[in-house]
Amino acid sequence: GTEYHVGVIPGDGTGPEVVAEGIKVLNAAADRFGFGLKYTTYDLGGERYKRTGETLPDSVIRELKQHRAIFLGAIGHPEVAPGILEKGILLKARFELDQYINLRPVKLYEGVDTPLKNKGPAEIDFVVVRENTEGLYAGAGGFLKKGTADEIAIQESINTRKGAERCIRYAFDVTRKRNKGKKLTLCGKTNVLTFAFDLWERTFYEVAKEYPDIATDYAHVDATCMWMIKNPEWFDVIVTDNMFGDIITDLGAMIQGGMGIASGGNINPEGVSMFEPIGGSAPKYTGQNVINPLAAIMAGAMMLDFLGEEQAAACIEAAAQKAITKDLPSLEAGKMGRGTREVGDLVCRYVLEQ
Amino acid sequence: GTEYHVGVIPGDGTGPEVVAEGIKVLNAAADRFGFGLKYTTYDLGGERYKRTGETLPDSVIRELKQHRAIFLGAIGHPEVAPGILEKGILLKARFELDQYINLRPVKLYEGVDTPLKNKGPAEIDFVVVRENTEGLYAGAGGFLKKGTADEIAIQESINTRKGAERCIRYAFDVTRKRNKGKKLTLCGKTNVLTFAFDLWERTFYEVAKEYPDIATDYAHVDATCMWMIKNPEWFDVIVTDNMFGDIITDLGAMIQGGMGIASGGNINPEGVSMFEPIGGSAPKYTGQNVINPLAAIMAGAMMLDFLGEEQAAACIEAAAQKAITKDLPSLEAGKMGRGTREVGDLVCRYVLEQ
Ligand SMILES: CC(C)[C@H](C(=O)O)[C@@H](O)C(=O)O
Ligand SMILES: CC(C)[C@H](C(=O)O)[C@@H](O)C(=O)O
Repeated sequence: GTEYHVGVIPGDGTGPEVVAEGIKVLNAAADRFGFGLKYTTYDLGGERYKRTGETLPDSVIRELKQHRAIFLGAIGHPEVAPGILEKGILLKARFELDQYINLRPVKLYEGVDTPLKNKGPAEIDFVVVRENTEGLYAGAGGFLKKGTADEIAIQESINTRKGAERCIRYAFDVTRKRNKGKKLTLCGKTNVLTFAFDLWERTFYEVAKEYPDIATDYAHVDATCMWMIKNPEWFDVIVTDNMFGDIITDLGAMIQGGMGIASGGNINPEGVSMFEPIGGSAPKYTGQNVINPLAAIMAGAMMLDFLGEEQAAACIEAAAQKAITKDLPSLEAGKMGRGTREVGDLVCRYVLEQ
Repeated sequence: GTEYHVGVIPGDGTGPEVVAEGIKVLNAAADRFGFGLKYTTYDLGGERYKRTGETLPDSVIRELKQHRAIFLGAIGHPEVAPGILEKGILLKARFELDQYINLRPVKLYEGVDTPLKNKGPAEIDFVVVRENTEGLYAGAGGFLKKGTADEIAIQESINTRKGAERCIRYAFDVTRKRNKGKKLTLCGKTNVLTFAFDLWERTFYEVAKEYPDIATDYAHVDATCMWMIKNPEWFDVIVTDNMFGDIITDLGAMIQGGMGIASGGNINPEGVSMFEPIGGSAPKYTGQNVINPLAAIMAGAMMLDFLGEEQAAACIEAAAQKAITKDLPSLEAGKMGRGTREVGDLVCRYVLEQ
């Protein structure tokens, strides 16, 4: 079978622990479905930064480009000032590898507790396609008269036709492949952000013409947040810009049961994509064997799906679902009734047994 | 007693219906507490725009400036393109009258249904202080190569030290007056919006020195949304910029039971403030006597509080609470078990009876 070269960035805090379980499960799936995975681990994160001042060196970027995919644990260190590692590693990887899609399935698995009343797996099952390389994340802006009473700080959202279009087209493709309502909702703020979302809206309806089988809808970002809480079943696929996507995907993670289960992909469909549990480095749980590895395991499944190993991906998802239903009273760190490693072992077993 | 001059903008859709009930209740409170209210009604909104092309003429702005406060119903018309009325009336009023605070209590009243599991009035009780005149709402930005494949659209968030500072100071004052945790949380995105929220963060911690009795906290906007769903009890007062405020206040409205009850104030502490139910014009319910007037009634109570009639404000709030507990099976339009006018009558009765 094929051998896939995967770059691994365990990162900070509980990142290495969940990545270890993710790899255990990936290997089980590889055995079972007859393909190979070759890992190269990169030591990036807060410790390296503290030691060397380096975040994500260009030489590592060049190496990462040689891989088929990247498997990431978590980045974030209590002793490093906020922003440095996020911008220096996460955002740099997204930008340099042109991972222009952030793909976040918001799916409530059977047996997972959601904070919403009267909503179950049938109601909470949509996908957010977030633009991942532009908008307010461009880092453009500056200060005037900094430090004085007359200071002005400007932050610019930069949106290109090309950037919006490729993201929107990707979202239409995702919608077409799903079996739900075949509906794509543009989430924006056309009534206030009259430049940025004018471009987005025009592009959306132009691209929509190529997808007559997909229904289109529009919702302001404030309304989107309300509906995600009140009527999540209204959504099939949502496409939005980088900043609004950041917000609504975290809201989505919460309604699907929290950080124990939420994973995402930073996708370059023509290049190297990076998959991650979205929970962060959770310093207070580090080294205790209590963090939930399922989000990392699900990120691994997403990665296999993107590598074309759909069957293996589906098998991991089913195995995780089985562990949730049969074995785990809660998905929260320390409340799973078993340790991080034991959950990984369970999922491996179910992968091999299915 | 004092006579307060109030400008009234009933607006579109169900706006006039809820404003009528709001005024009924305001008048009952005025009778009971011995002050006077003199109303001047302004015909603004979609119909006037369709007739004359006018949104909020400067002559009306000048007149509004002569009032102590403004009582607003709703703006928004299905036959007017999105953005025109919002920008031409709502945002223009906020900007021209320098209503630099948007104040949104997020409070779950006894007997009101929240979409969140295991959360009650003790858990959902915080206030959002939103900056209301700057940020992405400045309307700054533009296009390059519009309509071509190389198009760029830029949207600028403009933040001033003065604007952030007066908003933050106001938020500290609000926190000091409340009886909860005496904690003010800055909601931002310091790790990505490194210009805008650098200014906000520096200003926040400088102003904080003047309020040693208030605890301070910081949360990224994405985490704020998660916590509002998972742990709303963590919040006492939240201060944030215009765009993030727009998003989190609507999320707040949802967790406090929806549009039937949520009201807000556009405050200029030294000038003319404007109070409104935040539900919108709800065209499909217009003229049917089914829309819930409680949000408008609560907006009236907020207005009285700002006019210094705290007792009357508290009395209206208690009366509304009584109507909710005793008489209303649901706060949703058409499901209240009584009509818009009947709910207004009930609250009037309770105001007079208390
Ligand atoms: C860590 C941070 C820079 C990042 C973002 O804002 O994109 C994170 O919140 C995410 O959503 O992946
Ligand atoms: C109608 C719209 C312009 C407005 C805003 O975005 O501020 C509304 O959503 C609000 O929150 O009052």
